[in-house]
Amino acid sequence: MNTLFSKDADFARKFDRLVDARRESDSAVVQTVSDILARMHHKGDTALAEYTARFDNYQLTDEDSWRIAPETCRAAFEALDGDLRDALELAASRIRAYHTAQLPQDRDYRDDQGVRLGAKWTAVDAAGLYVPGGRAAYPSSLLMNAIPAQVAGVERLVITTPTPNGAINDLVLAAAHLVGIGEIWRVGGAQAIAALAYGTDHIRPVDVIVGPGNSYVAEAKRQLYGVVGIDMVAGPSEILVIADGKNDPEWIAADLLSQAEHDPSSQSILITDDQGFAQQVEDSVDVQCAMLSTRKVARQSWDDHGMMIVVDDLAEAPALANRLAAEHVELAVDDPEALFAQLRHAGSVFLGRYTPEAIGDYVAGPNHVLPTGRRARFSSGLSVLDFMKRTSFIQLDESSVNAIGPAAVALADVEGLPAHAKSVKVRLK
Amino acid sequence: MNTLFSKDADFARKFDRLVDARRESDSAVVQTVSDILARMHHKGDTALAEYTARFDNYQLTDEDSWRIAPETCRAAFEALDGDLRDALELAASRIRAYHTAQLPQDRDYRDDQGVRLGAKWTAVDAAGLYVPGGRAAYPSSLLMNAIPAQVAGVERLVITTPTPNGAINDLVLAAAHLVGIGEIWRVGGAQAIAALAYGTDHIRPVDVIVGPGNSYVAEAKRQLYGVVGIDMVAGPSEILVIADGKNDPEWIAADLLSQAEHDPSSQSILITDDQGFAQQVEDSVDVQCAMLSTRKVARQSWDDHGMMIVVDDLAEAPALANRLAAEHVELAVDDPEALFAQLRHAGSVFLGRYTPEAIGDYVAGPNHVLPTGRRARFSSGLSVLDFMKRTSFIQLDESSVNAIGPAAVALADVEGLPAHAKSVKVRLK
Repeated sequence: MNTLFSKDADFARKFDRLVDARRESDSAVVQTVSDILARMHHKGDTALAEYTARFDNYQLTDEDSWRIAPETCRAAFEALDGDLRDALELAASRIRAYHTAQLPQDRDYRDDQGVRLGAKWTAVDAAGLYVPGGRAAYPSSLLMNAIPAQVAGVERLVITTPTPNGAINDLVLAAAHLVGIGEIWRVGGAQAIAALAYGTDHIRPVDVIVGPGNSYVAEAKRQLYGVVGIDMVAGPSEILVIADGKNDPEWIAADLLSQAEHDPSSQSILITDDQGFAQQVEDSVDVQCAMLSTRKVARQSWDDHGMMIVVDDLAEAPALANRLAAEHVELAVDDPEALFAQLRHAGSVFLGRYTPEAIGDYVAGPNHVLPTGRRARFSSGLSVLDFMKRTSFIQLDESSVNAIGPAAVALADVEGLPAHAKSVKVRLK
Repeated sequence: MNTLFSKDADFARKFDRLVDARRESDSAVVQTVSDILARMHHKGDTALAEYTARFDNYQLTDEDSWRIAPETCRAAFEALDGDLRDALELAASRIRAYHTAQLPQDRDYRDDQGVRLGAKWTAVDAAGLYVPGGRAAYPSSLLMNAIPAQVAGVERLVITTPTPNGAINDLVLAAAHLVGIGEIWRVGGAQAIAALAYGTDHIRPVDVIVGPGNSYVAEAKRQLYGVVGIDMVAGPSEILVIADGKNDPEWIAADLLSQAEHDPSSQSILITDDQGFAQQVEDSVDVQCAMLSTRKVARQSWDDHGMMIVVDDLAEAPALANRLAAEHVELAVDDPEALFAQLRHAGSVFLGRYTPEAIGDYVAGPNHVLPTGRRARFSSGLSVLDFMKRTSFIQLDESSVNAIGPAAVALADVEGLPAHAKSVKVRLK
């Protein structure tokens, strides 16, 4: 963990370095993934079975071995204890409500020159949802990825998930049952993404692929962007907490650790105007971290990437936050509204002292799939729009084509496109 | 040009082949672009000047050589003849009106459990607009790319455009003056995209890059997706005309040629239920094509990629159109509404006999930057949303964190994330 002071002479330079630091791995993955995609494109299921045997030590043989049956998912759901089932149902219903309110409006109007104009939104036909195997398979992620697709109106929703050594994750299956997904393929990695994008004899292709995964999965999605739609390029998680000295240091330390425990490359940053408070938070991080079952990961993340920035005045914070464009921003102050009004670049913002980031991971309703690595400068969290597209439309009649057509002819002529001009001219009186 | 008949026994197979045909070039470009990006990342302006000398035969030396001055653009605008200036102004004002109506609404509400939820939309800070050099530099494209960014509220809008042998395109400069863009850099190709994404000593980085370009430019954007936002992966243009036998064949032939003249790899497809009409259109294509200054390109496109599909009943057309997911779809029938209601996948739709596609290229108002190559299955035309992003926000108080917090704790526990659970638990009563 490092501490910066905004009043120090070299603060700007050090802060620049923080902004520019990349915590994402590179390049070796690129060629491997490219090879897998090419082989999948040509060999389909044959390659898929080979990769699954090699990487997951799992044999795709008879039909039953390829898929997880809906009955298995139902059984997993019914085996949940009551509190957990209630928690999943509360999460699903709140996520559904928030995303339903995102549904875009169609437009259809006639303007003052008699031109009918509009936009019609439709869902994609099919979406693929990647669910990682092992420790990173979170039922909450399944809800966050599947429900927006369903709200958008996607008719076919399919899951791919690796089952290393045949092991399946009952919690994920329970979540799949809860949202009603019946098509689950036991494949993972870049090869699963390729199968979803290109289609194979077993797996029909989809139009959009979403969901978290390791660096091979992320790179496969990046390389297939354009063949299919993808949610986004995802990197390590991050949180920025902006807190005054009136917070309980234990609360803020817990918030910082909740990002740190995700991954050694996660990043937790505190901006405060109270140096003593920063020290108390640091002490509490140490105490709490030691007690976590995730302490190894959390400790490494905090040691390598943790950061405290002490400013003279919290009014400096929004400008710094906009540079960082963090995935999660907590505003733990009495009047979060004033700071929030100045925040332009952030994935999701948690206002006030009673809104820990983790509440947004599970049950608040907004999506927890959010832009990382400063991508909040230009991209948004997952939403129903990622599963929909807009078709614009235009309708002229004899009168309106005469009103605006001549201008189109003039522009087509000057652009050297005579057939464009002709197609308008023939319709003019 | 090929003709298919939907009643033929092998129609399904032949139509599949049409759907799956790719008209986009591959792979040789990938490595070249990757090398250019790497060199640009490390060498910045030095590499940029070298590439510009090599590819454009243009020397970037003193400060004046790097940029096109706003006064040059104003002079180009003032030199336009009056009709053309009016046409550009009509186009700009109609594009601005359509895109202004696209601006998304913020949300901010409290749900029945007392949780405040919402979404705040903001513009990106800076957008780069690529304008090709030479013949493909269209003032209409500049308007279509720049105006949505301005409507979105983007503060810094910058153009890069190659000036091979020092040649500049006055029409594009005039359009830049009309929309008020003052920052224009005389660089192009993959190296210009790299400069916009990474930034150089001369050119500050941007957050989103849009605009058409050759295959190197398109590949550079694809590779830099994630470092910056991009508009989309663009391929050759295409039109699908669905027309009954009551159309004037000359009109429909002109519409088909208006796509064909763009590029040898453009594609024009007619679906009709009248075989005799199809023949008349084909004859008219031949007659009109011979008279076009763009005949060489149009002829090659039509010969290589042109297609007529004769169906028994136009009711078959929407299902075929949805498979093709074309960039442009014309519905040249008496009741376009009935067909339109069944269209799910299309970039833009042109309703009725008086709406040639070219009207949408210039003056109708909707964007002419549209998804190609079947990408209308999952993506949309350029809009103000490409220059904006949404920040979700959440605010709990003592009461609402107690209402929904325990469910978050239960889920965090079962996902093996104890710091997540703790950050909520400490705030519960």
